[in-house]
Amino acid sequence: MNIIDIINKTKNKKELSENEIRWIVGNYTAGNLPDYQMSAWLMAVCLNGLTERETLSLTLAMRDSGDILDLSGINGVTVDKHSTGGVGDKTSLIIAPVASVCGVYVPKMSGRGLGHTGGTIDKLESISGYRTEIPFSEFVDIVNRTGFSIISQSGKLCPADKKIYSLRNASGTVESIPLICASIMSKKLALNADCILLDVKYGSGAFMKTYEDAVKLAGMMQRIGEKAGKKCRAIVTNMNTPLGSSIGNALEVKEAVEILQGKCRNNLYELSMTLTAEMLNLAGKGTVEECREMAENAITSGKAYEVFRETVSLHGGHLEFPEAQYKYEVRAVHDMKITGIDSQEIGMVSLILGAGRIFKDEPIDYTAGIVMNCTVGDCVSVDDTIMTLYSSKISDFSEASYRAVKALKFCKI
Amino acid sequence: MNIIDIINKTKNKKELSENEIRWIVGNYTAGNLPDYQMSAWLMAVCLNGLTERETLSLTLAMRDSGDILDLSGINGVTVDKHSTGGVGDKTSLIIAPVASVCGVYVPKMSGRGLGHTGGTIDKLESISGYRTEIPFSEFVDIVNRTGFSIISQSGKLCPADKKIYSLRNASGTVESIPLICASIMSKKLALNADCILLDVKYGSGAFMKTYEDAVKLAGMMQRIGEKAGKKCRAIVTNMNTPLGSSIGNALEVKEAVEILQGKCRNNLYELSMTLTAEMLNLAGKGTVEECREMAENAITSGKAYEVFRETVSLHGGHLEFPEAQYKYEVRAVHDMKITGIDSQEIGMVSLILGAGRIFKDEPIDYTAGIVMNCTVGDCVSVDDTIMTLYSSKISDFSEASYRAVKALKFCKI
Repeated sequence: MNIIDIINKTKNKKELSENEIRWIVGNYTAGNLPDYQMSAWLMAVCLNGLTERETLSLTLAMRDSGDILDLSGINGVTVDKHSTGGVGDKTSLIIAPVASVCGVYVPKMSGRGLGHTGGTIDKLESISGYRTEIPFSEFVDIVNRTGFSIISQSGKLCPADKKIYSLRNASGTVESIPLICASIMSKKLALNADCILLDVKYGSGAFMKTYEDAVKLAGMMQRIGEKAGKKCRAIVTNMNTPLGSSIGNALEVKEAVEILQGKCRNNLYELSMTLTAEMLNLAGKGTVEECREMAENAITSGKAYEVFRETVSLHGGHLEFPEAQYKYEVRAVHDMKITGIDSQEIGMVSLILGAGRIFKDEPIDYTAGIVMNCTVGDCVSVDDTIMTLYSSKISDFSEASYRAVKALKFCKI
Repeated sequence: MNIIDIINKTKNKKELSENEIRWIVGNYTAGNLPDYQMSAWLMAVCLNGLTERETLSLTLAMRDSGDILDLSGINGVTVDKHSTGGVGDKTSLIIAPVASVCGVYVPKMSGRGLGHTGGTIDKLESISGYRTEIPFSEFVDIVNRTGFSIISQSGKLCPADKKIYSLRNASGTVESIPLICASIMSKKLALNADCILLDVKYGSGAFMKTYEDAVKLAGMMQRIGEKAGKKCRAIVTNMNTPLGSSIGNALEVKEAVEILQGKCRNNLYELSMTLTAEMLNLAGKGTVEECREMAENAITSGKAYEVFRETVSLHGGHLEFPEAQYKYEVRAVHDMKITGIDSQEIGMVSLILGAGRIFKDEPIDYTAGIVMNCTVGDCVSVDDTIMTLYSSKISDFSEASYRAVKALKFCKI
């Protein structure tokens, strides 16, 4: 086999065999193919696409590049959930305990945030003491005791994905449905839960800007999961406004706790209940309606919050929420109606405040972020607080508040 | 400026500005851009193309990456000729002296062969003593004395093209009309003759496999040459059969000499006269018909051969033709009519015999090659010699003769 022939095949829209795809992935991961050949192939994939058969081969080759977890030590049906990332998306922190209460096991590995979207691991690390890296046996043990555990993704899972993702990032080859699909699904399949629920987001704050692309990606991921022998379902959800009212790590954990305590019923609560119901249904726990009722009961009974507290405690965490050193209230200068929120820009403001990172391994200000006092459709009066900005990293809020206001669409009333 | 933005623009079919293109070429040539970013961009160009404005910017940026020759020391109108390469193409050796006799100056720099096509410099180096690398002042001096000189391309011309070409070769990004156009035209514009004649070949032995692609490339190169301030003309010619009867370095020089001596009037003679007439017309020497007559007279008068001999001698060369150590006659096994010749395969047979190189800098057997005794349309009788294979490198002709026979299309009669 010869890399130039393989590149030319994709360039000329000819289908690659499973062997050819395994050959590229294997040789690139092993360091036998130079980056410039791989990036040329990746660009050809971005522009010409891959067939579904090729995408399946790519996904499986990437899955097989590292460890595949053995979850047989867990005492029941395991369920995994993945979101393609959004602004203020803390659903995992809610869904995992709720689903656990309803009788499934959620062994979850998550990632860190980069750019305008957050990462579940950063959110958990804002809880003082929470250990996101624990031995695999302890992970299984916690899942068996409380029903769930969320830890940082093992470096031994999908080394091919890690290497390819970083090259894509540096070569303008990120936007490609088959490549995104293979990247997500290879990790999900290596984690190896029985059921996989995929939340594919579209809109200004999401990877997929259009509904059509999100549907395409969702369909492809679901079929690939099924062909790889999993119970798999993908649903498409809107990410045009931030999820819930808080953006920023500790602020988001606090909001998740409020949801788990039944104190709040916003769009975040709705989405969490919807996703949990689908997840339970996928795991055979009843119809979607029955599962939805079970999920709501897990909250009203207080059991979901109890399980969350217990799990955080088993990870060494203490649920306290230190406030940021500086804060700034953004107030309305007119009577107005909010007609839209640019979530991507809100994510960028949160980044400026210190809640995210532009470069890998940058330290994070866990207290930083935004609390929105209004959402799309709300009317506010002059001088009302629209949102509050928090930071322990910067005390000059001029750029952040300017951009935050610009991220709102409104009409004067 | 940012390489990811630039890659994304081309990926999304947005036009790059001249500044952006100069930025890529400049930074890549200077070693500031890694190969994997450049190859991703090149693949995006292969698949999405470039506009003509972008192609012009790319050509000029590549031209400006190195020296631009100052030909003002030459005493008249200078004319350059380029062929996109073919099998048995020794037209430069004929056209340069013929055009010189007709009153134009031909300061020519040529390249070496790679793969199945030959290179003019290899052909000239098969002439014992011929120096293809001489000081620029001597080059100008020879051109002024005899009307032409052909030397090896200076390493200081178009370093950007050299670097990009080698990356294209290693990353499956060779086939692209704008990239081929920029590669050829940047070198022609750096050589800086007043008039440029381009011979764009199509067919089995050529880079452009179809007539349509050849026409597209020809049109683009001509317009780019004109926009860069040159008199420029591109003509499209057929490369479905080898040019002339000889393939291989010394054998080709010998055939060129026979043409210059007026001994032979085959398809090589025809093409050489056609190209010379276009070249002279472009330089303002008369109508195409008048120029054609001048060219033919330059041969029948013996002046073109005289000028060729004189120039070879000024380069230190001696026109002797040592024969190959081994030869093999391929004979007809039926009475048959030749209906086609696969020139690319004939080029490959010549390579096997030792006349070319697969890797850069491989040594060449100058005596090796093929002399065809028949051409398309000829009828041959059983046991007639169809072609003769020559080599000083191999004595076992079994593979070469097998492939040579397979390269012929014929019907039994």
